Amino acid sequence: MTTYPPFGAGLWNFATYVDRYATDGYGDPRSTLDQIALAGAVGDLSFVDLNFPFTPGVTLDDVVAALDETGLKAIGVTPDIYLRAHAKGAFTNPDPAARASARAIMDGAAEAVRALGARYVKIWPGQDGFDYPFQADYADLSRLAIEGMRDLARAHPDLKFVIEYKPREPRTHMFWCSAARAILGIQRMEVDNVGVLLDFGHALFGGESPAEAAQLLIDHGLLWGMDVNDNFRGWDDDMMVGTLHWVETLEFFHVLRKNGWEGVWQLDQFPFREESVENAKLSIRFLKRIYRALDHLDEAALADAQARQDALTSMRLVQDALFAAGED
Amino acid sequence: MTTYPPFGAGLWNFATYVDRYATDGYGDPRSTLDQIALAGAVGDLSFVDLNFPFTPGVTLDDVVAALDETGLKAIGVTPDIYLRAHAKGAFTNPDPAARASARAIMDGAAEAVRALGARYVKIWPGQDGFDYPFQADYADLSRLAIEGMRDLARAHPDLKFVIEYKPREPRTHMFWCSAARAILGIQRMEVDNVGVLLDFGHALFGGESPAEAAQLLIDHGLLWGMDVNDNFRGWDDDMMVGTLHWVETLEFFHVLRKNGWEGVWQLDQFPFREESVENAKLSIRFLKRIYRALDHLDEAALADAQARQDALTSMRLVQDALFAAGED
Amino acid sequence: MTTYPPFGAGLWNFATYVDRYATDGYGDPRSTLDQIALAGAVGDLSFVDLNFPFTPGVTLDDVVAALDETGLKAIGVTPDIYLRAHAKGAFTNPDPAARASARAIMDGAAEAVRALGARYVKIWPGQDGFDYPFQADYADLSRLAIEGMRDLARAHPDLKFVIEYKPREPRTHMFWCSAARAILGIQRMEVDNVGVLLDFGHALFGGESPAEAAQLLIDHGLLWGMDVNDNFRGWDDDMMVGTLHWVETLEFFHVLRKNGWEGVWQLDQFPFREESVENAKLSIRFLKRIYRALDHLDEAALADAQARQDALTSMRLVQDALFAAGED
Amino acid sequence: MTTYPPFGAGLWNFATYVDRYATDGYGDPRSTLDQIALAGAVGDLSFVDLNFPFTPGVTLDDVVAALDETGLKAIGVTPDIYLRAHAKGAFTNPDPAARASARAIMDGAAEAVRALGARYVKIWPGQDGFDYPFQADYADLSRLAIEGMRDLARAHPDLKFVIEYKPREPRTHMFWCSAARAILGIQRMEVDNVGVLLDFGHALFGGESPAEAAQLLIDHGLLWGMDVNDNFRGWDDDMMVGTLHWVETLEFFHVLRKNGWEGVWQLDQFPFREESVENAKLSIRFLKRIYRALDHLDEAALADAQARQDALTSMRLVQDALFAAGED
Repeated sequence: MTTYPPFGAGLWNFATYVDRYATDGYGDPRSTLDQIALAGAVGDLSFVDLNFPFTPGVTLDDVVAALDETGLKAIGVTPDIYLRAHAKGAFTNPDPAARASARAIMDGAAEAVRALGARYVKIWPGQDGFDYPFQADYADLSRLAIEGMRDLARAHPDLKFVIEYKPREPRTHMFWCSAARAILGIQRMEVDNVGVLLDFGHALFGGESPAEAAQLLIDHGLLWGMDVNDNFRGWDDDMMVGTLHWVETLEFFHVLRKNGWEGVWQLDQFPFREESVENAKLSIRFLKRIYRALDHLDEAALADAQARQDALTSMRLVQDALFAAGED
Repeated sequence: MTTYPPFGAGLWNFATYVDRYATDGYGDPRSTLDQIALAGAVGDLSFVDLNFPFTPGVTLDDVVAALDETGLKAIGVTPDIYLRAHAKGAFTNPDPAARASARAIMDGAAEAVRALGARYVKIWPGQDGFDYPFQADYADLSRLAIEGMRDLARAHPDLKFVIEYKPREPRTHMFWCSAARAILGIQRMEVDNVGVLLDFGHALFGGESPAEAAQLLIDHGLLWGMDVNDNFRGWDDDMMVGTLHWVETLEFFHVLRKNGWEGVWQLDQFPFREESVENAKLSIRFLKRIYRALDHLDEAALADAQARQDALTSMRLVQDALFAAGED
Repeated sequence: MTTYPPFGAGLWNFATYVDRYATDGYGDPRSTLDQIALAGAVGDLSFVDLNFPFTPGVTLDDVVAALDETGLKAIGVTPDIYLRAHAKGAFTNPDPAARASARAIMDGAAEAVRALGARYVKIWPGQDGFDYPFQADYADLSRLAIEGMRDLARAHPDLKFVIEYKPREPRTHMFWCSAARAILGIQRMEVDNVGVLLDFGHALFGGESPAEAAQLLIDHGLLWGMDVNDNFRGWDDDMMVGTLHWVETLEFFHVLRKNGWEGVWQLDQFPFREESVENAKLSIRFLKRIYRALDHLDEAALADAQARQDALTSMRLVQDALFAAGED
Repeated sequence: MTTYPPFGAGLWNFATYVDRYATDGYGDPRSTLDQIALAGAVGDLSFVDLNFPFTPGVTLDDVVAALDETGLKAIGVTPDIYLRAHAKGAFTNPDPAARASARAIMDGAAEAVRALGARYVKIWPGQDGFDYPFQADYADLSRLAIEGMRDLARAHPDLKFVIEYKPREPRTHMFWCSAARAILGIQRMEVDNVGVLLDFGHALFGGESPAEAAQLLIDHGLLWGMDVNDNFRGWDDDMMVGTLHWVETLEFFHVLRKNGWEGVWQLDQFPFREESVENAKLSIRFLKRIYRALDHLDEAALADAQARQDALTSMRLVQDALFAAGED
């Protein structure tokens, strides 16, 4: 019987959502505890990444109890630094008071990571960047983004931080926009507790090869987390994994395995109109097939083909492995 | 002194917004009356397009009074058929009850058009379409979209309806997605009171040439409304007009003038983080320059160059006209 | 044993290529006869679409003999109306003499269709369109494109013509750019011998759902041919089918089957750096799996899920069918 | 009277072109000397970047003489390492012999740089990368690309080298694909004679803000050259500058000026169907207007607005400056 890697999910996979059109939301709001209960119902999940602060009225003790009850562990905590108070940025907000209030939320998230025994604080500064040409001085923007992150990391030397990059949304240009830009910024921080969380869909959307981006981050010792989903390459659709890009999903996990990367296979999906537990179940069902396909891949033959950059032979092997994964 | 065309704006230009990240919104909610007051403060606006239903507690009489006070007229009414109740579609919702409730909102909007003396009901069925491959039967989807629109139009033969197409968002694929698709669908309806509202940014985003799309609609007698904004071509950013695509904006209005199209120059912009009155003022300032640039364009020389498809000569004339527009 | 549909390929799958960088080409030129010999070596091909004129020195009799020898039949003939002489357009060229010379090539292709017993003349007017804003008068462009095609069709009432649309390349905007635009144009021609050839990759590249585009064309009675390949959605990469988009490829063929469409499954691929026979073999190997996957698809359950627009259930069925296709 | 910066152009601006459709080319081939004569006819050009090897039969002495006659100077030399012999890569070719032959061409280009007194060897390894998922081992690819470039630089310590990055074409994925990726690679080389040439259109095409990319390169001391053109953001169209993106072109040059960057304003355009001298003349006419617009820009007010990230005020200033540039 196959032993699968541990699976995880951002807790927001089990939230409900709003957008600029459905301003009354795609469903009734759910508390952090509601979301944990749904995550627990998936059955195959071991880890969750939690938004912080928790929803109103939910305490850390409540969360610990809910996780215990479901058998879930916290892998990370994601501070909400992209709400109204930080609509013009967290680290790169031109207003020092707004930067300070964002920092306070992140310090709170750091404390939650300690309390929950999680692996990292996940930083996704989605409002850091700009919308219009000429809106920002790029040297200033870069300085604020990098120094702010550096200061945060130095204030919590006992913890790890991961930056999740994305090309854009909700700004038209996000500062932390690609694997290479993340590496460059982290190098400038001169700290050793900041790494990267690679979102498969963000890489696709940004025109990267997700597998190549993973290799680049691994080569720099910075691939500390990842999550998957799918999209049409033009936007961060956060669709269910396995619905569009089978070959590139397999390739992404192949690069992880080849490099001995052992971490949690996480989901980052927004089922706006779908039932969230079934959405996660079906995702994990597909990821298990990907895992099995890797077992079926003729690695020696593939290495030989790649040494010649022989696309046809590689693709024949990959198709064979994927189709074989259905037979188990 | 130049006599400019009438300017208009969707009332949502003066709303505040939420998105899937800033779930607490980019500002405090504003009532329909607040929005009308802001529209009135712009100074150069003659028309507004109003969302329907109005915000809670605002009556039709209130709206009439507020419009009177500001001197604004209603050009259209846009029913909100993309909220939670219709998250899976208005016309194409698989649930007949949801289709009926969407229709009821649209009938209400039709009544409001009559009461306000507006020119049309504007239909933007943003939730009509699909997200995933294999989710929908496309023949069924098409039938629902077209028959529903036809039935609506037949139920209100005294009114005009315009469909605003867009490639996607909030669905990954919107049914009414391009000028050509809109024309084909309208032809199938066999009614004479349905036309198209062309949004410049939707055309850009969809890979159309906005000017060519305008000509196509004019050739089919269906360009009944338009609005402008700007974006980076990869998303419906609803940015301020004149911030990115000067030449294509000029070309769009040139095609309208060449065809004798006389209508309202409307704004459809979402100033998430910007002050909305100033946003509109600056937009109109730019549109006036576009209008003046058209006056400076050497039409005879341009027609001659276009007859030869001579891009260099055309571009020289266009640049001369645009730069001359600053001198007035 | 599964009985597969007939497979076909554009003869250019077996050519060598140049581009604007590798101006000395990716291989030595190959004659039409060389290409036929390679197509014959694939083993599973029944049909080819031939460029016309043939390469220098090759006669119609040579081609007939070569086809006979390999057992291949001609499905179509594609006139080369996008070379230097028509770099500014075939039908939409501003120069009447250039339009006439393009027409002469197409008349020659029509004659070849008769001689070869092929099904259609395939028109791909890749140079018809424009590059710059303001370069062309769109009403003129449209008139030239549609009237030219109409006149061609009327001149050969005994033959069928198919237009292959594509968003762009080599022009930045191609006139025949989408399924809907093709339908609109053909309607204006008022002839009954012009249809559409849908290239899966062109639809993907243009932001269409290939399956939805196929349904739209079928609904208008105009899907007369198709070919497949794959790409990264941002360009017409003409890669090997089955290398990126499994689910959408399956969906495309599912729509064809559901509508009882019975035609040739053709390849349109440009193996710039790959061995062309192996490229075609591997493509057909994948297409056979797609065909088998359709046999495994639970159509009743899928129809039920689609009636509810239930993406999760649909996707579960589709994944089951695709994985099952490897077992045969 | 305004003193403008020196203008330059890649000599290929004056070549003729082929592509995969117009395989007989968009015009008769032109020799290096023909191209120099055309560059000289522009009138405002001071520098050219020359392809190497020169066209058949043209010697270095011929080139020196032709440059002298026209008053042009060589700014760079671009080795042709993307022709058939290196269709599978120059530095990253899996075949050591192909890597060696590419290197020999580059050594020749280095010699030409010395002989012509040019500033740099420009490396554009367009065939270095991959087309298909699973085709290459990304760690190997990266090692080959970086070590090969490092060895080249070390072999010519008296010269400077610039890498011109681009997302893709002719490969679907080019190794040197973004400003950040270029910086990371150059850091690994541990040499001081390799920098970057930023092509405005490549940045646009890659989803970068060209101005932000320029600032990033300047911050790392690596912006050693640049060229401009325009495109529709989805491909490297190499259109005439000033035809689509006025504001972003101005912003790009504004960042250069703000940082005291003093270099040659170069053109990299492919006038497939346009007359090349007029194409260059019109480009420089527009660049002069950009230069004048910079003089009109209220820098103090802009700096103040940018400190607040105030997009509306910035845009008002920018529009004023651009329109004022037409008055001179």
